[in-house]
Amino acid sequence: MVSVLLGFSAAASAVEPAVLPSSVRAPAEKLRDAILSGSKAADWTREITDLAGPRMPGTPGDRAGVAAAVALLKSQGFANVRAEKVMVPVWVRGVETGEVVSPAPHALALTALGGSVGTAPDGLEAEIVRVGSLEELAAAGASVRGRIVLVDRPMSRTSDGSGYGDAARVRSTAPSLAGKLGAVGCLIRSVGTDHDRMPHTGGMRYEKDAPKVPVAALSVPDAELLTRLARRGPVRVRFTLGCHDAPEAESANVIGEVPGREKPNEIVLISGHLDSWDLGTGALDDAAGCGIAIEAARRIAELSPRPRRTVRVVLFANEENGLRGGKAYAADHAAELDAHVAAIEADLGQGPPFGFSWDAGAAAEAPLKAIAGLLAPMGADHLVAGEAGGADLTYLLTSGIPSLGLLLDASEYFDYHHTANDTFDKIDPRVIDRSTAALAVAAWVLAEMPVPLERIPPEKRQLPAWVR
Amino acid sequence: MVSVLLGFSAAASAVEPAVLPSSVRAPAEKLRDAILSGSKAADWTREITDLAGPRMPGTPGDRAGVAAAVALLKSQGFANVRAEKVMVPVWVRGVETGEVVSPAPHALALTALGGSVGTAPDGLEAEIVRVGSLEELAAAGASVRGRIVLVDRPMSRTSDGSGYGDAARVRSTAPSLAGKLGAVGCLIRSVGTDHDRMPHTGGMRYEKDAPKVPVAALSVPDAELLTRLARRGPVRVRFTLGCHDAPEAESANVIGEVPGREKPNEIVLISGHLDSWDLGTGALDDAAGCGIAIEAARRIAELSPRPRRTVRVVLFANEENGLRGGKAYAADHAAELDAHVAAIEADLGQGPPFGFSWDAGAAAEAPLKAIAGLLAPMGADHLVAGEAGGADLTYLLTSGIPSLGLLLDASEYFDYHHTANDTFDKIDPRVIDRSTAALAVAAWVLAEMPVPLERIPPEKRQLPAWVR
Repeated sequence: MVSVLLGFSAAASAVEPAVLPSSVRAPAEKLRDAILSGSKAADWTREITDLAGPRMPGTPGDRAGVAAAVALLKSQGFANVRAEKVMVPVWVRGVETGEVVSPAPHALALTALGGSVGTAPDGLEAEIVRVGSLEELAAAGASVRGRIVLVDRPMSRTSDGSGYGDAARVRSTAPSLAGKLGAVGCLIRSVGTDHDRMPHTGGMRYEKDAPKVPVAALSVPDAELLTRLARRGPVRVRFTLGCHDAPEAESANVIGEVPGREKPNEIVLISGHLDSWDLGTGALDDAAGCGIAIEAARRIAELSPRPRRTVRVVLFANEENGLRGGKAYAADHAAELDAHVAAIEADLGQGPPFGFSWDAGAAAEAPLKAIAGLLAPMGADHLVAGEAGGADLTYLLTSGIPSLGLLLDASEYFDYHHTANDTFDKIDPRVIDRSTAALAVAAWVLAEMPVPLERIPPEKRQLPAWVR
Repeated sequence: MVSVLLGFSAAASAVEPAVLPSSVRAPAEKLRDAILSGSKAADWTREITDLAGPRMPGTPGDRAGVAAAVALLKSQGFANVRAEKVMVPVWVRGVETGEVVSPAPHALALTALGGSVGTAPDGLEAEIVRVGSLEELAAAGASVRGRIVLVDRPMSRTSDGSGYGDAARVRSTAPSLAGKLGAVGCLIRSVGTDHDRMPHTGGMRYEKDAPKVPVAALSVPDAELLTRLARRGPVRVRFTLGCHDAPEAESANVIGEVPGREKPNEIVLISGHLDSWDLGTGALDDAAGCGIAIEAARRIAELSPRPRRTVRVVLFANEENGLRGGKAYAADHAAELDAHVAAIEADLGQGPPFGFSWDAGAAAEAPLKAIAGLLAPMGADHLVAGEAGGADLTYLLTSGIPSLGLLLDASEYFDYHHTANDTFDKIDPRVIDRSTAALAVAAWVLAEMPVPLERIPPEKRQLPAWVR
């Protein structure tokens, strides 16, 4: 989500609406303005979060989310509503506590990273070694043996969320590096831009040859506290994590459709992911994306005529800690992937939107510029070529399906991301309506335009390194 | 802290510096500007919070706070540094958990109110009755029997903190009313202005004749969730509180002095309170007030000549749940209360300051206006007559000691007040320096001016109703 945004300033699009016939353009403009006047995207976000709660893959909340989404799509008149079974990994958080033992009694606000092993039941106590970066950790060498490593590396606040990648790399890399150096545990400053006593969880995978040490995220104030205390002298901490893996369980991708009037077998896929981390109710990550996709499709369904092709809403399972939903979708629908003319995901909160990232054949640029032109009056006309779409679309890449990512302002997103604070009260209807309008316009045009976007050329149809 | 601020616009002071001789004014102006150029108030706030952690009365953290404060005052050259023993009530929080049982699985972010009884060890489960005010609770009558009452009454954000009084009254009144009506438990929307999943604790006392029901504060998002769910139908919740009273324990008022050059037995008392609630480290409430008072006195001590009278820093014990520190001070120092020429407390966060509330004889107004005049260039020249000072000064009222309260902008204070989020990272040195300058100027003038403020007239020397 990060590197793709670097070509930003060069990518501001010229407005070329003339590429599209007025039979495509005029309904798009009406759709845009009608949604900006008010939409139900926030209502659908509320339905999912209130009626299911946290939706950690394979848990009762996850199953409640699937049920709520199916009921919602049926109630709103979608066609072919179904839940397609996906087996997902299950990781259970269990108890988690932390404290400073010396020099002073402090409770620590911490939470296990998803995938961490637990500590012994009575916890893990050791002196900390504080580092500010992966480089400092590597340089610390044997001095971390028998210690708990604290990595206090801040994340930058940016409007495009580009501070996330570097900080998340520290989160995913530090535990295995600490384990290899002989550390007994790892505490990592939360990947977040807030100053709340709210740790941010997130996914983590041990390297194959690394000893598995328990790893937790500290809230930003707690990481800063430990850094200050470490400047004074030795700091001992104790923490207990009860987390562990459990047997795989059943979840589902939830699907509903607006059937195309002329080419119902050709599909524009629009999506979010239905699962969430367990601390909050995943309102921003990613019930909002689901709400945006559902409402965009619902408003397209109200148009007369309906679009030429089918608009398919897919609410993916298990984005957060496995991508099994995206993988299962690609496998289950292998026979019709050639008929997917585009795939779009919204998975960076509620917005507001500022454009789309895209990955397709070079000839796709002209019609995409035309779509951007339709969104210029609302400031959502930036196009960024390169890696695109959400993580759930990764397994569609190899079929060459043109994919788009809804670019959303993420300057506040990482204040809440993966914390207990990611709850429905953070959703602003006026903001999420804008994102819904942008997605609806793109989906309508892609479903209605006479000739589909050029597909990703065969030589570029590789899975990215991080999923290979 | 609320009603006194209503006469605000009428109270803006005329500048009357001429009341004070230049030997008082000129050092005051130098002191003000020097402190605005940089102070160590934030450093002292950090020392207390980092080295002691949460300072719940009677706990090891509280004792660590006393030790840290004594060491700090000694290291900074204060005279007559001592810890004066105070016996304090002890209330232990214990385990606390909460969840929505139906219609959907949600964890609830809640915390017991100080003084609450606990639930049975396996918790309390019942359907909720949701009300929006004390009036609605009273009107609910017998319908709450056997239920858990949810009081979802928001607090207003105001710059003077005046939204707190009404909301805190609901917090202190609702539990006993719910108990009398036959409820089995009570959940109260946090008295706070934030939207974080951070419950705000606070003090609560059962009425003598009321059944004691367990009572917890919900975070604002959780209260709003329950209100939304209650609109749909029945809501069952379960919560467990392990809180209980424990035997009284020892704490202390910490004192240090800048001895007066001419009248060392006459005392200007400046103060904050050293104890805090247990969830955070009480950086804003009230290590900041301690830091402001310590730094103001330290800077006065650097003046040449030192002031005529003694400036005594008092860091009170047990403000939060007992006022035993204020009460003990009044008793222990009964013989010298007539020699206290003024008492000031800082207990509304870090600032910035906008003036002083005051309670004294009518003739005090002219010199107080002169002090305000000295603070006009920094916008801290509002004077509000009436109830004044902090809660710790209450027991000094009956001796007629003129008391002042440092008026601080509290528009963000109640985002953090009494939560786990009240930690040192919220302190802004530039802001707390302003508050320090205002307190230092007032303390200097009161300690140096030739004739002390007129005392509170005998007919007004009554304890307020809430402590009688």
